[in-house]
Amino acid sequence: MPGIYDCITIGAGPAGMAASIFMARAGLKVLMIGDIEKTGLIKAQEVGNFLGSDGVSGPDLLDRGVEQVKKYGAEHLVAEVVHAEEKGGSFTVKLADARKFQSKALIIATGLTAKSSGAKNEDKLMGRGVHTCVACDGPFYKNKRVFVIGHSSFAAEEALELTGLTDDITIVSNGKEFSIAPELKTMLDQREIKYDKRRAVEFVGDKRLEKVKFSDNSEEKPDGVFLALGTATALAFSQKLGLEMDGQSIKIDRDGKTNVDGVFAAGGCTGGNYQISKSVGEGCNAGISVIKKIKGLTNYQDLT
Amino acid sequence: MPGIYDCITIGAGPAGMAASIFMARAGLKVLMIGDIEKTGLIKAQEVGNFLGSDGVSGPDLLDRGVEQVKKYGAEHLVAEVVHAEEKGGSFTVKLADARKFQSKALIIATGLTAKSSGAKNEDKLMGRGVHTCVACDGPFYKNKRVFVIGHSSFAAEEALELTGLTDDITIVSNGKEFSIAPELKTMLDQREIKYDKRRAVEFVGDKRLEKVKFSDNSEEKPDGVFLALGTATALAFSQKLGLEMDGQSIKIDRDGKTNVDGVFAAGGCTGGNYQISKSVGEGCNAGISVIKKIKGLTNYQDLT
Repeated sequence: MPGIYDCITIGAGPAGMAASIFMARAGLKVLMIGDIEKTGLIKAQEVGNFLGSDGVSGPDLLDRGVEQVKKYGAEHLVAEVVHAEEKGGSFTVKLADARKFQSKALIIATGLTAKSSGAKNEDKLMGRGVHTCVACDGPFYKNKRVFVIGHSSFAAEEALELTGLTDDITIVSNGKEFSIAPELKTMLDQREIKYDKRRAVEFVGDKRLEKVKFSDNSEEKPDGVFLALGTATALAFSQKLGLEMDGQSIKIDRDGKTNVDGVFAAGGCTGGNYQISKSVGEGCNAGISVIKKIKGLTNYQDLT
Repeated sequence: MPGIYDCITIGAGPAGMAASIFMARAGLKVLMIGDIEKTGLIKAQEVGNFLGSDGVSGPDLLDRGVEQVKKYGAEHLVAEVVHAEEKGGSFTVKLADARKFQSKALIIATGLTAKSSGAKNEDKLMGRGVHTCVACDGPFYKNKRVFVIGHSSFAAEEALELTGLTDDITIVSNGKEFSIAPELKTMLDQREIKYDKRRAVEFVGDKRLEKVKFSDNSEEKPDGVFLALGTATALAFSQKLGLEMDGQSIKIDRDGKTNVDGVFAAGGCTGGNYQISKSVGEGCNAGISVIKKIKGLTNYQDLT
C-alpha cells in the first residue's frame, strides 16, 4: 500500500473532478478513482448549459477535466472501487483487483445511485424480495436461494458478501458480458457461486417476489434478488460507512459534509438536480471542506 | 414598460449567468441585468479551479458567459438595479435611469454583499453609528445629519430614501468620481443633497460614532453613516423584498428558494464559498426552480 492520501475521491465525473482540482491546487495529496467511461456525462453529445463550455461534448469535457485534475497534481486511477471502510479515523478503499489505498478523508462522488434492472415490477416489489443492499437486507436470506443482478466487479463483491449467509448464490449478468476482476473471479469460483447470463424482464409477485421471468421466457424462483448494477453506488458506500441517507441519496450539508466525520459527498449521489453545474458546485464545496479539515483552516479561499 | 418577463436575474456574474442560461434554454422569457465589469470575477487574471475552463481569464470567461446567455435567448441589459419590489405576486425592478421592468420571478445574484469603506473601526462601530441599510436603520436618524458613503446610483437611491427623514444628507464618494444616473442626479439636486469627494480613513468613537476622519486629515461629525458602496447588495434587496437573512447573506434552501415566494438567490450573496463553481451550481438550482415554478413542472431536467 502506498503512503496515506489526504483524500481519496471515489468517482471521476464533474463532482469528483471539481473536488479533486480544488484539493490538488491547495497542495493536498489526492487520489481520484474512477473511469470517465462510466460517468453519466460520457453520453452527452453536446453540453449547452454549463457556463464557459458551450457546445463541448461530454467526452471532451471529461477529457479536459482529467487533464486539469492531473495538471494540478492529483493522481487519477481508472479503476473500480468495490469497498470502503473507516477504522481509527482513516479510510481504506478497496479496488476490484484487491489493491487497497488509505486516506484521511473520503469524497463520495459516484453519481446517480441505484441503476434499474429494467425488469417489470422492480419498484413494486422493492423491499419485498427485490433489494439493493446486501449489507442491509442480506441477513433475511440465510440459507436461501439468492440472485445478484449485475455483471461487474461490484456485483461480484456483493455476491461474496452473501457467502457467509447462504451457499446458493447466482450472479445474473442481465444479458451483459461479465466484467469481473480476476481476483474476485477466483474467489467466486472457490465459493461455487453460479453464473447466469439471462436478462430479467419481469419480477412476478403480488405481495412479494415469487419468480423472475427472463427474456427467453424461462423462469426461476429465487427467494430474493439483489440489484448490483453498474459500479458501487452511494447506497453501497452508505452502508459500508454508516452514512445517513435521504431515500437513495447521501445526506449532505451545504459544505458537502455527511454525518460521518471525514466523509464528504457531491454530485448525483446526493440527490437534487442532476446537472454538471450543480455537481461542480458541490464538488467545490466538498473539496474546500476537506482542505479546511486537513489544513485546520476555517476561512480557506482559493481565489484564482 | 415592456411585457412581463418570466424572470429577471439581478447580477451578471457566474451565478446570474448560469441561472439565465438554464431558464432561457427552457424557453422562458428572461432578462439578466448587470454589468460584468462590476462582478468579482472581472479581476481574475487566470481561472484554474473551474472545470473545463482551465487557464481562462476572468474577463474572457465572463464574455463567453454573456455570449452563451444571449445565444440561448435571454436578454442582457448592462445597467444598475437600484430598487425591487413585490406587488400582487409580480415583481418590479427599477434601474438607476428610472426604467422599470416586471417579472413573475426574481433571482438575486448580486455577488458578495456589503463592500467595506476601508475606514478604520468600521466593524467596531457597525450598528453604532455606522450602518449598511437605510430601510432598517434610517428611522434612527430623523432630523439628524447623515452621510451616505458611496459613489454610484445605488448610493444615490439610498440617499433619496433618507429624504423623508431628514434634510441634512451628504453623499461621500470616498475618493472616487461620482457615477450617478442623470435621473437620480436631478432628484438629488432637487432635494438639496450635498456631495463630498473626500475619502474616509477612520470612524472615531468608543461606544458609538463620534466623528469621521478623512485622508486629508479633515474631520466631520455626522450623527450616522450609511455604507452604500458598489451596486445594490443582497442586504438592500432583502429589505426591499422581505427576505430572510443569515448575517449579510440571503438564506436559501437547496433549490435556491428564499422565504419569499417567487424570489430565488444564488452565488456570493447567499454566503458560503465564494467560488465560480459554487455560484454556477447555485445558479443552476435557482434557474431550475424558476422553470419548475413557471411551467408547473415538478421533475424538470435539462439533460443536455
